[in-house]
Amino acid sequence: MKVGFIGLGIMGAPMAANLVKAGFEVGVYNRTPDKCESLVAAGAQAFDSPRAAAVGRDAVFTIVSDTPDVEAVLFNNNGVAAGASAGTVVIDMSTISPTQTVAFAKRLAQQSIAMLDAPVSGGESGAREGRLSIMVGGERAAFDRCLPLFHAMGKTIIYTGKSGNGQRTKLVNQIVGSLNLLATVEGLRVASAAGLDLATTLDAIGGGAAGSWMWSNLGPKIAAGDDRPGFSIHLHAKDLRLASEFLDDLNLEAPGTRLTSSLFRQAEDTGLGALGNQGLARLWREQQV
Amino acid sequence: MKVGFIGLGIMGAPMAANLVKAGFEVGVYNRTPDKCESLVAAGAQAFDSPRAAAVGRDAVFTIVSDTPDVEAVLFNNNGVAAGASAGTVVIDMSTISPTQTVAFAKRLAQQSIAMLDAPVSGGESGAREGRLSIMVGGERAAFDRCLPLFHAMGKTIIYTGKSGNGQRTKLVNQIVGSLNLLATVEGLRVASAAGLDLATTLDAIGGGAAGSWMWSNLGPKIAAGDDRPGFSIHLHAKDLRLASEFLDDLNLEAPGTRLTSSLFRQAEDTGLGALGNQGLARLWREQQV
Repeated sequence: MKVGFIGLGIMGAPMAANLVKAGFEVGVYNRTPDKCESLVAAGAQAFDSPRAAAVGRDAVFTIVSDTPDVEAVLFNNNGVAAGASAGTVVIDMSTISPTQTVAFAKRLAQQSIAMLDAPVSGGESGAREGRLSIMVGGERAAFDRCLPLFHAMGKTIIYTGKSGNGQRTKLVNQIVGSLNLLATVEGLRVASAAGLDLATTLDAIGGGAAGSWMWSNLGPKIAAGDDRPGFSIHLHAKDLRLASEFLDDLNLEAPGTRLTSSLFRQAEDTGLGALGNQGLARLWREQQV
Repeated sequence: MKVGFIGLGIMGAPMAANLVKAGFEVGVYNRTPDKCESLVAAGAQAFDSPRAAAVGRDAVFTIVSDTPDVEAVLFNNNGVAAGASAGTVVIDMSTISPTQTVAFAKRLAQQSIAMLDAPVSGGESGAREGRLSIMVGGERAAFDRCLPLFHAMGKTIIYTGKSGNGQRTKLVNQIVGSLNLLATVEGLRVASAAGLDLATTLDAIGGGAAGSWMWSNLGPKIAAGDDRPGFSIHLHAKDLRLASEFLDDLNLEAPGTRLTSSLFRQAEDTGLGALGNQGLARLWREQQV
């Protein structure tokens, strides 16, 4: 299969590299062109617009920051929709608005272009190791056709139903993960204030009913004061803004997400945005010191 | 070793049974005497007061509901302190106030009785299968002496330091677990309102960065509407009351715990107290129907 790949950020670059490695013919585009170099060295072809990267491709991936970026990459004059032919599948792996996703899919359908929403979880290491979880919404037939591509990038590939359901599932994932992260931050703050040894506390709690991925993976970083980003506070805050809009659309009161959204907004306002999301712990650390 | 065991509730009964099974000479007491029968059938000896169950024992376990219950069982006229000799180790496995724990330990020390606080995590199944996590605070020498007893009941035995630290670690555990449970409840509520398939959502999220013990173990129960208690809302609310007092003592602002405490209090007020803690989901379910 010939594929286009648009967006070579922290996640996109290793994902595109895994498609090249799996033997697919990959055409890449990135706003900052020098990010294409390592992909070209690996065997990809670089293009100078999303349109050009979409011409003659069976599938075109997009993985960019936010809803307006996806819209621009798809529908600008030099966008994917201007280059892709009928029968192409557009696969958006960004985390964006489910409502807008459905609208984008409808616009593409007018050109007989199918769209899958396929946001991912598993972070940079998951992207590098081809071990991402991929949550896919859209037409089943298009999903089935693209499975070999997904398997080159991920380990857990889950078809979640109609268009937008991949994004909806991803937002649920972010809602749950944010509260588990708050649990980790708050638990370690309390442990520290109570004079407990953090390594012992991490051990004592990690294997039981209060255990979580966040506790086991970000807990030790918090204990060590390591704020380097696997996933930044900026991106986490952006996902929680999407989650809040999603809750508004559903007319749903969700006090946990209201709290985590407000805390991540405060973290951004306090200038912590570029830190890893475990840096949420700094919101209080400065107050206590 | 000869041990006394006071409190044969959902947790205590299988824990005492495991001590009998491991070959220790076990004397039991329970406020409702008929709960002693199965233990006596297994080889334990029943006594008619905590005092009597403590006479001539190397170690005396207590596992009852709350701080005042421990105080009564230890210090009433017919309490453990009236029966135990110098050199006995009292091991309280209830979840109670760390501050009161330290005070109880001091009172016992006046009789040269050592006290360990050793609350557990892992639920009824963990108690039955001898796979509990046990978080132990108190004198290291007393802990070392009692290790064979702990190993008969638990899998992960962690020494957390001075008197009260077992309880402090347990309260951190409850703080973290409560927020992970809220994450699970809120995530599934949102998924349901968004029309996502819950089994698919449970699958898609459980193995990634938003995964947790609560998601994997209580999530399926919530999806199935199964409210049977492994751990009740009443007990969970009690632990969060202890956690709130603990935070007050530390003079610590903890917005996540403030939220979960308030939600569990509401759940009790709404008459959900006897349900399993996953029944927290009912707080909103009734509003939505």
